[in-house]
Amino acid sequence: MMRSGAQALFIAEETNLSTSRFIRNCWYVVAWEHEIAADALFSRTVIGEPLLLFRTSDGAVAALEDRCCHRLAPLSKGRKEGDCVRCGYHGLKFDAGGQCVEVPGLDSVPPKARVRSYPVARRKGWVFVWMGDTGLANEALLPDNFSCDHPDWRNIPGYMHYDTPYLLIADNLLDFSHLSYVHEKTLGGSPEIARAKPEIEAVPRGIRVTRRVPDVPAPPFHLRMRPELAGTRLDRWFIYDFLLPGTLLMHSGGKPTGAAPDDLSQAITLHSCQTLTPETENTTHYFFQQSHPAAMGDAALTQTLFDSLIGAFNEDRDMISAQAAMVARSPGSTMLPLAMDAALMRFRRLVDEALAAEIAAG
Amino acid sequence: MMRSGAQALFIAEETNLSTSRFIRNCWYVVAWEHEIAADALFSRTVIGEPLLLFRTSDGAVAALEDRCCHRLAPLSKGRKEGDCVRCGYHGLKFDAGGQCVEVPGLDSVPPKARVRSYPVARRKGWVFVWMGDTGLANEALLPDNFSCDHPDWRNIPGYMHYDTPYLLIADNLLDFSHLSYVHEKTLGGSPEIARAKPEIEAVPRGIRVTRRVPDVPAPPFHLRMRPELAGTRLDRWFIYDFLLPGTLLMHSGGKPTGAAPDDLSQAITLHSCQTLTPETENTTHYFFQQSHPAAMGDAALTQTLFDSLIGAFNEDRDMISAQAAMVARSPGSTMLPLAMDAALMRFRRLVDEALAAEIAAG
Amino acid sequence: MMRSGAQALFIAEETNLSTSRFIRNCWYVVAWEHEIAADALFSRTVIGEPLLLFRTSDGAVAALEDRCCHRLAPLSKGRKEGDCVRCGYHGLKFDAGGQCVEVPGLDSVPPKARVRSYPVARRKGWVFVWMGDTGLANEALLPDNFSCDHPDWRNIPGYMHYDTPYLLIADNLLDFSHLSYVHEKTLGGSPEIARAKPEIEAVPRGIRVTRRVPDVPAPPFHLRMRPELAGTRLDRWFIYDFLLPGTLLMHSGGKPTGAAPDDLSQAITLHSCQTLTPETENTTHYFFQQSHPAAMGDAALTQTLFDSLIGAFNEDRDMISAQAAMVARSPGSTMLPLAMDAALMRFRRLVDEALAAEIAAG
Repeated sequence: MMRSGAQALFIAEETNLSTSRFIRNCWYVVAWEHEIAADALFSRTVIGEPLLLFRTSDGAVAALEDRCCHRLAPLSKGRKEGDCVRCGYHGLKFDAGGQCVEVPGLDSVPPKARVRSYPVARRKGWVFVWMGDTGLANEALLPDNFSCDHPDWRNIPGYMHYDTPYLLIADNLLDFSHLSYVHEKTLGGSPEIARAKPEIEAVPRGIRVTRRVPDVPAPPFHLRMRPELAGTRLDRWFIYDFLLPGTLLMHSGGKPTGAAPDDLSQAITLHSCQTLTPETENTTHYFFQQSHPAAMGDAALTQTLFDSLIGAFNEDRDMISAQAAMVARSPGSTMLPLAMDAALMRFRRLVDEALAAEIAAG
Repeated sequence: MMRSGAQALFIAEETNLSTSRFIRNCWYVVAWEHEIAADALFSRTVIGEPLLLFRTSDGAVAALEDRCCHRLAPLSKGRKEGDCVRCGYHGLKFDAGGQCVEVPGLDSVPPKARVRSYPVARRKGWVFVWMGDTGLANEALLPDNFSCDHPDWRNIPGYMHYDTPYLLIADNLLDFSHLSYVHEKTLGGSPEIARAKPEIEAVPRGIRVTRRVPDVPAPPFHLRMRPELAGTRLDRWFIYDFLLPGTLLMHSGGKPTGAAPDDLSQAITLHSCQTLTPETENTTHYFFQQSHPAAMGDAALTQTLFDSLIGAFNEDRDMISAQAAMVARSPGSTMLPLAMDAALMRFRRLVDEALAAEIAAG
Repeated sequence: MMRSGAQALFIAEETNLSTSRFIRNCWYVVAWEHEIAADALFSRTVIGEPLLLFRTSDGAVAALEDRCCHRLAPLSKGRKEGDCVRCGYHGLKFDAGGQCVEVPGLDSVPPKARVRSYPVARRKGWVFVWMGDTGLANEALLPDNFSCDHPDWRNIPGYMHYDTPYLLIADNLLDFSHLSYVHEKTLGGSPEIARAKPEIEAVPRGIRVTRRVPDVPAPPFHLRMRPELAGTRLDRWFIYDFLLPGTLLMHSGGKPTGAAPDDLSQAITLHSCQTLTPETENTTHYFFQQSHPAAMGDAALTQTLFDSLIGAFNEDRDMISAQAAMVARSPGSTMLPLAMDAALMRFRRLVDEALAAEIAAG
């Protein structure tokens, strides 16, 4: 039933793995707020397009094409002048909307002298850009990344760069069975995670994955928060939405097996926001944070959890990079869909549908 | 006669220099025995295919495709469990024959869940894989690399990696005229080597090259074995079979000019086994050893000869790498066949015939 | 008028930016004289062709294809023997005209055994090669690089390697408006340079650009020669010929504003020779010197000016490399022609005309 149809689709999707097409009409995280200083030019590439970001005097963020219309020099090698940027090669000056306002040696500026500007949105520490049709930019589509900046939660903002296509990382985040193997000694701690069957539901622009793992040892990650749980068996949960274009919003935790359903007195509770932004076909920006309740510990705990998370994310990157290299050198190979791939297959279908809708809309 | 026809063929062969096709129905050396530990996973690529090698509890060597059938992760990033290997990404477990025997979370394993396995043969320290039709694997085709492991001979096993196509290295081994120039100060020592005309004969799956060089100074290489020969002139010989896919088996040596034909009392005698295994179109594994008679010296001599050989093989690699880089940037250039190329031309023809036969056989 | 027509042409030219075709019938600087030692082999690639250069016993320079006709090994890995070069692989020996004169093991040399030789010219420290039709090589076409070696002038010969197409560097040299921005703190010192309008005239095989910049502060570069000018305003000038294939010959300087036209008593006067030689489509050799009058200072001043020039040329290379990387990743992007591009557009048209003439001539 679902399996055989899904399998055919899945193989078709694999064929498109290295497609150069990305969804355009969506918000991509381009930076953490703290990455864009008040006085500096910041550059980052999103879905293959070079972007220049800088703050205007009111603290807002401008996003322009990082490529001068004159001789294609990167504007980010120039300098900020007030709310404008001046190209460092021949001195053309552009305002925050991308219009050229000065050409040295010319009395008037040709109207064609402009660079593309991109809608920007900011929410709870994440700075987003809209790469598609400007008229469709809609802040209602921003994800609810509340724990990134919330008085009840503590975290350290994280960033990693991947030399792999973003979909391979999305695959990883959509199938937590890998926790048992990739993260056996960090986030995992038990083969039971892989054995648990997640529920998958549709949510707007994404899916919700719920995985409950009863009666397992507390993983090393949890013991950093509650050392007193050593030796205790826990019921663990991972409940997350995974939303287009590639954002994970997750409640996770664990509490002693046998505790009453509403007794969280000895529980670990966490909230995580993570998002993937394709840099190019084969490279990806990964922004993430894992929050613990503010009441649960101080900055030392926050740092400990962050260090632990980085360790685990390096395990992921190591494996995904090896996988990506193997995929790249295996043009004729297909992947064998298994039950554990249900969520990633559904998400890839959402990506394909969104791409098809953009093509259909012209 | 032979020259003009050969020339036409030769140029046609050059056109195929960077072909991606390799002979498949043959034994390729994949490793020295000592490279494959009892408890570890070992990976190496042969003719473009990633291989995983590991030992089963009986000491035998299993060779599997190093690419999980599920999501294409390299199995070599997983771990050995008894006589099986478990993928480090999502935990699929494969037996030594490549069949998946466990999928975490599934009660039964889909029959399609398997990876390719390759016939393995082992002989005198060399571990071979058969990359073609399994039904054709035939140990009678293994080369006679006796001196690799023989009580009468001593050597140190060697390995080098080349960033060049294997045929350029085969060319080098098939024309020892280069000893006079590339190895002037190491293995060569005289322009007479280049002037000597080798005899070339057919042998099964290869050719035999016999080059005798009378009345030349002892080369530095020989003097390391017999310093007393300094100042003595020698009659030298190199007699080797060069066999498909790329194995050299050679008797070589020298004795004082004028000594009776059967008087080896002051002779240098050596036996060498060398083999080329294409890693990819443009990279090559090179396994080799140069043996001296055990009676001739102890481990110190063995080490001295090995160091000397490595020095000379670095001279080769330096030249062949420069040649390969020049070939790669010279798409329109052809090589000019000369008399000294007779052996390499015959061997390239054998390669072409073997490839053609495999194509014809489907 | 000129603008609209020029714009169409310009965009067409941009399309050819990464063309692999180069003008062949011209002199390219391949080396400074001092780079080619009496006893060594010297190799450098020009318009994609590997060249071997060496001196014969009379001090002349021979230029051969750096690729043995036998097996394509670089001859530069061999050795000089008298006025010949011997290949380091199989020992073929070639004379200074490229004819093979010895093949080890052969009694006679096949007539086809030769490598291409190139006409060489030498003038004032620059060694030139003619890459096109030998019969057209004409020393009357050499540029007048007099200050490279002249008793009235002092300089240090310079060389830089660029990982960019040569035309992007020519663009830079043809539009000094960049001095105001790229070299604001070194050669520039004022936005007035960008505002000044240069005159452009035709000269044989090139254009003459005259830019006069009245009443500006002395730039840091000038103050190194005449510290007493600090605080003084100068009238500056840059008068240069830019000649095919890519040579700049420039008089430049400055004198106190208000000084009589012929009063150079407090002037800075400089002469510079610079030339671009494409190495490959995407890499370039840059030979240059900036001379000051010998009477104006000693070796310490020469060194100071050279160091200052290198600093400024690194600023150029940094910007042009960033531009080239952006051009390479922006296949669909076009440049917007502005008034400041008049000289570079005219020069690119000369390049196109020369290429078209070579095609028409067969």
